[in-house]
Amino acid sequence: MSHRKTGVWFVGACGAVATLTCVGARAVARRLKNPTGVLTETRLFDGLELPALDDLVFGGHEIRDTDMHCAAREFAERAGILDSALLTVLQDDLAAIDQNLRPGYVVNPTPAVEALAERGKVVAAATPQAVVEGIQSDVRDFQARHDLETVVVVNISSTEPPANLPIEFASLDAFRTLLASGEPRDGLTAGVLYAYASLDAGYPFINFTPSPGSTIPALMQLAQERGLPHMGSDGKTGETLVKTALAPMFAGRALRVLSWEGYNMLGNRDGFVLKDPDARESKTRSKDNALRQILGDEDTHSRVTIDYVPSLDDWKVAWDYIHFEGFLGARMAMQFTWQGNDSALAAPLVLDLVRLAAFAQAQDESGLMTWTAAYFKSPAGLEEQNFVKQFELLERYVAKHREAARARKQH
Amino acid sequence: MSHRKTGVWFVGACGAVATLTCVGARAVARRLKNPTGVLTETRLFDGLELPALDDLVFGGHEIRDTDMHCAAREFAERAGILDSALLTVLQDDLAAIDQNLRPGYVVNPTPAVEALAERGKVVAAATPQAVVEGIQSDVRDFQARHDLETVVVVNISSTEPPANLPIEFASLDAFRTLLASGEPRDGLTAGVLYAYASLDAGYPFINFTPSPGSTIPALMQLAQERGLPHMGSDGKTGETLVKTALAPMFAGRALRVLSWEGYNMLGNRDGFVLKDPDARESKTRSKDNALRQILGDEDTHSRVTIDYVPSLDDWKVAWDYIHFEGFLGARMAMQFTWQGNDSALAAPLVLDLVRLAAFAQAQDESGLMTWTAAYFKSPAGLEEQNFVKQFELLERYVAKHREAARARKQH
Amino acid sequence: MSHRKTGVWFVGACGAVATLTCVGARAVARRLKNPTGVLTETRLFDGLELPALDDLVFGGHEIRDTDMHCAAREFAERAGILDSALLTVLQDDLAAIDQNLRPGYVVNPTPAVEALAERGKVVAAATPQAVVEGIQSDVRDFQARHDLETVVVVNISSTEPPANLPIEFASLDAFRTLLASGEPRDGLTAGVLYAYASLDAGYPFINFTPSPGSTIPALMQLAQERGLPHMGSDGKTGETLVKTALAPMFAGRALRVLSWEGYNMLGNRDGFVLKDPDARESKTRSKDNALRQILGDEDTHSRVTIDYVPSLDDWKVAWDYIHFEGFLGARMAMQFTWQGNDSALAAPLVLDLVRLAAFAQAQDESGLMTWTAAYFKSPAGLEEQNFVKQFELLERYVAKHREAARARKQH
Amino acid sequence: MSHRKTGVWFVGACGAVATLTCVGARAVARRLKNPTGVLTETRLFDGLELPALDDLVFGGHEIRDTDMHCAAREFAERAGILDSALLTVLQDDLAAIDQNLRPGYVVNPTPAVEALAERGKVVAAATPQAVVEGIQSDVRDFQARHDLETVVVVNISSTEPPANLPIEFASLDAFRTLLASGEPRDGLTAGVLYAYASLDAGYPFINFTPSPGSTIPALMQLAQERGLPHMGSDGKTGETLVKTALAPMFAGRALRVLSWEGYNMLGNRDGFVLKDPDARESKTRSKDNALRQILGDEDTHSRVTIDYVPSLDDWKVAWDYIHFEGFLGARMAMQFTWQGNDSALAAPLVLDLVRLAAFAQAQDESGLMTWTAAYFKSPAGLEEQNFVKQFELLERYVAKHREAARARKQH
Repeated sequence: MSHRKTGVWFVGACGAVATLTCVGARAVARRLKNPTGVLTETRLFDGLELPALDDLVFGGHEIRDTDMHCAAREFAERAGILDSALLTVLQDDLAAIDQNLRPGYVVNPTPAVEALAERGKVVAAATPQAVVEGIQSDVRDFQARHDLETVVVVNISSTEPPANLPIEFASLDAFRTLLASGEPRDGLTAGVLYAYASLDAGYPFINFTPSPGSTIPALMQLAQERGLPHMGSDGKTGETLVKTALAPMFAGRALRVLSWEGYNMLGNRDGFVLKDPDARESKTRSKDNALRQILGDEDTHSRVTIDYVPSLDDWKVAWDYIHFEGFLGARMAMQFTWQGNDSALAAPLVLDLVRLAAFAQAQDESGLMTWTAAYFKSPAGLEEQNFVKQFELLERYVAKHREAARARKQH
Repeated sequence: MSHRKTGVWFVGACGAVATLTCVGARAVARRLKNPTGVLTETRLFDGLELPALDDLVFGGHEIRDTDMHCAAREFAERAGILDSALLTVLQDDLAAIDQNLRPGYVVNPTPAVEALAERGKVVAAATPQAVVEGIQSDVRDFQARHDLETVVVVNISSTEPPANLPIEFASLDAFRTLLASGEPRDGLTAGVLYAYASLDAGYPFINFTPSPGSTIPALMQLAQERGLPHMGSDGKTGETLVKTALAPMFAGRALRVLSWEGYNMLGNRDGFVLKDPDARESKTRSKDNALRQILGDEDTHSRVTIDYVPSLDDWKVAWDYIHFEGFLGARMAMQFTWQGNDSALAAPLVLDLVRLAAFAQAQDESGLMTWTAAYFKSPAGLEEQNFVKQFELLERYVAKHREAARARKQH
Repeated sequence: MSHRKTGVWFVGACGAVATLTCVGARAVARRLKNPTGVLTETRLFDGLELPALDDLVFGGHEIRDTDMHCAAREFAERAGILDSALLTVLQDDLAAIDQNLRPGYVVNPTPAVEALAERGKVVAAATPQAVVEGIQSDVRDFQARHDLETVVVVNISSTEPPANLPIEFASLDAFRTLLASGEPRDGLTAGVLYAYASLDAGYPFINFTPSPGSTIPALMQLAQERGLPHMGSDGKTGETLVKTALAPMFAGRALRVLSWEGYNMLGNRDGFVLKDPDARESKTRSKDNALRQILGDEDTHSRVTIDYVPSLDDWKVAWDYIHFEGFLGARMAMQFTWQGNDSALAAPLVLDLVRLAAFAQAQDESGLMTWTAAYFKSPAGLEEQNFVKQFELLERYVAKHREAARARKQH
Repeated sequence: MSHRKTGVWFVGACGAVATLTCVGARAVARRLKNPTGVLTETRLFDGLELPALDDLVFGGHEIRDTDMHCAAREFAERAGILDSALLTVLQDDLAAIDQNLRPGYVVNPTPAVEALAERGKVVAAATPQAVVEGIQSDVRDFQARHDLETVVVVNISSTEPPANLPIEFASLDAFRTLLASGEPRDGLTAGVLYAYASLDAGYPFINFTPSPGSTIPALMQLAQERGLPHMGSDGKTGETLVKTALAPMFAGRALRVLSWEGYNMLGNRDGFVLKDPDARESKTRSKDNALRQILGDEDTHSRVTIDYVPSLDDWKVAWDYIHFEGFLGARMAMQFTWQGNDSALAAPLVLDLVRLAAFAQAQDESGLMTWTAAYFKSPAGLEEQNFVKQFELLERYVAKHREAARARKQH
């Protein structure tokens, strides 16, 4: 492993995922917990020079009036995963991270996001351009203070509602002209501005949300120009993960899926934000695409329902019913119930992606890292949704670099 | 497609799977039903010269006192899949198949198999050698009467209890000496004798059961010598199919599966035979291996329970509970219920395998066809249990031959 | 049993429930099928002089262009319950019923009901009064032609959307004035007119739907005046039945139900009509009340979702997730999946209720028959929702009459 | 409420149930927790003079080398229900209980129980009579030290394997002669000796396990002679509770239950002890009876499977599949998954029963308290298994005494 320090800058630094990522990274670094769920800590990555978990330095923007410590305590109470003994031991580590938190930027918020922000502190920035500059200034300062090799920016904030993307997103020039003009546009959201600010300033960008982020043509161009890796969209943690593992089984047996009905219940801030029907639509669209790509059957009746059930707190329960037809018209069914903690499922993915983004940047790789598709519900730059096939892309990427590293050593 | 006729010889010709295979092949051939579930009828196989479904001629051995027509009627009543209208239309087709049925051979039967056989007709054959000769004579006669290009022999009879394989199975010479000696041996079961008889007489062999069949060293050698393809073991139709699709998801996310408990309920003759604890052990062993290979975790507590529930008739209901640990020790769970008809799931696999075996023989391929692994619970000659990775072997095999066919055409 | 014939007049005579009721009654009467599900055929009712199943004569109104035979065939195909052999044997019985079918009345239909009706035949009646007279004339004619002791009218038509009931429903006089005026009113639906017409003409009325029917004050008064029994509302067949059996368990253990989320999927005409959000609201409201009454906890988060899933045809699959808190705040969960055929569950209830209504009329009982509460989702005239407590009302009613019958005999 | 102190003596004082009962009673008494799950704290019992939770004094026998504090810590870690903050606050209360713990008696133990005991301390008592005297001496001492109104003895120890009860159990005289003789007998288990010792010394007895306890004729006679209340057997907490709530629904609809298959997984000491097939048989027999009594159908195929799944620790997951036939032979199914913590479900029942036993004794009621049937899997002295009907017995008992109390007050 290389031992230069690597920064991780979260958009939404005190959300459940970011909090658990930070707490978990420190707990594993201090050998208080096993790295269960962190694929980059398994044998598969032996021989690859990824940044060590202990060398990750965390910081970020947060729109609510809270800090890492409060967020961790709140999560511990709601989800029952972190115990107070652990948080006490990590007290100093979390306090150090709190030093790296800055007030976040709110752009065109949904009512639900606005409600969260109102209770907290938000930087008032007159224009989109000013937002971009503010972000860049905060991240550069973070890098300088900690003498970081690079900073990987991770958007892990609440889902934005779908919007018609403005024509100016089609090229980098038009995008910059729009930005300079100071004119508002529907699709010019916080997610897009963060992606622009990161890539423009030389930082890899990971879009862990379903919002557009760096996947618009203008920013794809920017990543290429700057020679920077980026990846997205929408971390694949629960029901969709199962779907992309199960659906290939039906396809591989030529079984005809008549209906695939998915009901999701969740009780956390994410669920609260998804009470907004627009935001929910972004989410369910992202969840539904996977199925259609794998089954390739236009006739399948599929539906994804997401409901807010407060008593579940930070947990999620999903029930899927799959009605299918087999030989001679035999009607059969499979159903599954998934009881997971989305944050605990997402945090290790964030750690993996951050390390892989830093590694890719060190290898001078630029553009969409499509070999990270297995991590995303809507893998940018790739049609493939079959989980195992996506995973093979990752295996091949690792094998290639391991081979190269071995070759270098032999010289 | 080639238009020479291909024979299919079933060991267990009036069991539910064989019956549904015959009825289904005829229903599809006559365009009365769609070929749902038959992968070789999908686009994936475009450009490969497989025998047409309509060119398959069915026959086989059966130890019970029944025929294809009775078996189909019984299945229709118990499973509710075949309707009487369809059976009436296919009456002549089934009658033609009945002409190809012969009394079966019972060797070292379990009490349950003996109970089935007692009600029927069984050929008494003094020695194993005589059994072999009887089988060969019946199949050769079948081939001659119908002028068949080849006959693919498919063992689809009841599961045999596990036995210690005798040392004589280690080489073909020793095996033949044992056979000639007329001495009884524990592992010298009907399944092994059928496999020997088929390969020795020049016929490809498919072992659709968990019994050893052609996978013992002596017969692997025989298949190579005779230049014949063979494949097995144990058709992958239900709960295990799901396991081999789902387990890679847990492995690919570095999640730690603590317990994977599978409860299977079934109500047909298969379930009745599995009331015998020894036979059940063969089955559960075959089902459990898959999990261990994929998860690679010795600590996983896994169990497969199979219970006979008469009211389910020809249906199977399985419930699996998967308890797993994620990041920071978070305990999560997934559970699924599978409601399937094993026979309707198995029959199209048999059709696929028969066509692929005939194709492989036509290509002069010999030995274990490991590229058919996706079809089996215990793929002979291959460690890989991950369903999608197995499926890719099949995709690559097809691609290679499609390419070759295209090249031939261009000349 | 008394041997005078009893008429059954269906509002919605070719719907799945009515069809299955007729076919089933005839199949049981002819001893072709067991009376499974018909409680009045069990020992519980020994000693009570209910009309024999064989003495029921069926007729009714239908707005679609179909007949009992077509409806039965369609149901057989979609639900896989009736086999064609049975329908062939009952051909004459069904033809006899077809003679008793008359075109139905459509009043203030929802778009979905209108769509059904458009394909069929509907009687155009200028005013509500004319509708009432038309109904009465058809039922009287039915009674006369078959020399029936009485006719029990059963509303089993599609759910009507909820409406604000007009002030004129508060008393019989006001209701009659409204009727005479010919003025339209929102709540003056087919269901209400059928209930009025039946009671006014001297026929017991059963409201098997969630629509208001005979439960408005004006008609309660009418039933009392005419000395007629009536009952309702909304037959309790599936998920709600389970709820009213399970919820008392949580209440009886002082467990705190935090959330009870119910997801219903169905694929028949009922589901199609429930695509209309208004109609759905009637239904979900009726389903939700039961829970609140039993748990008596205002804080329980409960939700009932109904989705149309075409591939299920006449079947229904419901999944309920019950999240509850126990001692010391322990969070636990129960979930259930219900796979039922609503029509097959409803038909025997209709047979029971018809026989009980005729019996009650013979005993000169009038008003709401609250002792039939166990049959209904929203038992009219009774708060009690606990299934077993409702059932005890029925047991006590039967015991009382059995005792009386015994006493009469001894004299 | 009366304010004299009441003793509670546990057989198995540091098992999960007893531990949670003690911790919970203290936590509720100190208003640190709500009494969720404690029925006697609900309005239903308003007006009855039950001993206050704060007036219960706990003590008992334990065969393992542990104390209340260790047991609580262990449970907290395994089940995640008790948090360490709570245990810290209750430290003194638990220490006070520890003063009341005494080494337990082991009689004819199963290998699993022996294994537990070996690690701990057990009183060596030469003869059954000596065991009885030892028990009585410990309980009397407990009563004297704390000046207790009475002591309710609760058997909450591990399930004993079923045994043929000796003829001497048929009458009190024969039982006493046997005891005096010092001869060993198969059925003369710890559970029976504890029941005898308690009743003989004037203490009410609650049998919370499936072992015979006080329900043998000799001890029924003893309870009558001594004028003492006793109750049992086998606390109804999970899957069986659900069964006795659900089965009446099928019976009340005349639906024919074809199969009811229950699979239970549990991971605690109880599960470990149930690995012993004999002990398991006691348990499954007790669980199965309920179903047969309610359904009254000899043909129902029912099975109860209990498996030890270590990763579940103190939790239990049960899955039940109910296959049933409705009208016209329609085959339907219901399945449920129960995820509960047996100890958290049992502890409040123990609190209820202790208070009710003390109350009954104060009312001079003697013999089997059949009105507590709702609390037990095998209610002694009563056939009724229908949960709601059992609950009504309790409601009526309470109503009777409330009425009496009111009448007394008015004088």
